[in-house]
Amino acid sequence: MIHRSGCPINLTIEVLGDRWSVIVLRDMMFGNRRTYGELLNLSLERIASNILAARMQHLLAEGLVTSAVDPSHKQRKIYSLTENAIQLVPAIVHLGAWGLQHTPSSPVLSIRARLLADGGPKLWEAFMSELRYLHLGTAQPQVSVLAELETAYRAASEAAISSA
Amino acid sequence: MIHRSGCPINLTIEVLGDRWSVIVLRDMMFGNRRTYGELLNLSLERIASNILAARMQHLLAEGLVTSAVDPSHKQRKIYSLTENAIQLVPAIVHLGAWGLQHTPSSPVLSIRARLLADGGPKLWEAFMSELRYLHLGTAQPQVSVLAELETAYRAASEAAISSA
Repeated sequence: MIHRSGCPINLTIEVLGDRWSVIVLRDMMFGNRRTYGELLNLSLERIASNILAARMQHLLAEGLVTSAVDPSHKQRKIYSLTENAIQLVPAIVHLGAWGLQHTPSSPVLSIRARLLADGGPKLWEAFMSELRYLHLGTAQPQVSVLAELETAYRAASEAAISSA
Repeated sequence: MIHRSGCPINLTIEVLGDRWSVIVLRDMMFGNRRTYGELLNLSLERIASNILAARMQHLLAEGLVTSAVDPSHKQRKIYSLTENAIQLVPAIVHLGAWGLQHTPSSPVLSIRARLLADGGPKLWEAFMSELRYLHLGTAQPQVSVLAELETAYRAASEAAISSA
């Protein structure tokens, strides 16, 4: 890839690629989606299959994602975040925090972004440790930030349904 | 605009638009470029005129930028960042910080990103206060972060030239 400039902001945007790549990283990070099928079928934004395939190739080529054969299902690939991708957590949390303040985001879909924004760097570090455990095989942290986010999201979803 | 989902991360990415919009915001924030000519002619990434025109329209429509007639030159417009855009500073600084660690960024072009990343939230707040002064007409802060960044950038440029 020929870079348009050596500015670190420009280079980061080039590596991230288009919006769909960020959506895929978000779903792998916060939704723990690990297979093509999960990324495709559970996509909130209804990503098209050809776009998802192209974005996975981009993320693999840029070293943000790796793939391996699923030991329980040989035809299937499991995708993992790399350390480089995990280090994008603070930037992505900041994008979400801005969206909470300045866009008409859905209250239910905002729960996880709000918990992460409010938790600050200490919570992001704990979340990144958990991602390293899940994706890179490091030691399991004592607390699961993902489980806390999921519990809060489910509670908000149920509250929204029962008040509808 | 029909949003693909109400997720705050997705909505932020939709508002930002493509990579060129982020480049324009970067140049307005860190390079203090305020006119179409400055954004076009000083563009490190050599943005094309039709792309710049389209991105300015996008940023105006999304409420990240406003435009006004330049009092000293009636044919010219001055662009200003809005409060919403200024609040993107921490997210953009995080993108730059990631680029410093994980991309082959140019040492000279990295100076400002490094100072901002190392300065932490206190420096970002001071920089945002300065942007509010420059773009929104609030009181002038006592310290100019922009001048500090510019001084460091020039010193690094000159050092690179004399060692070449």
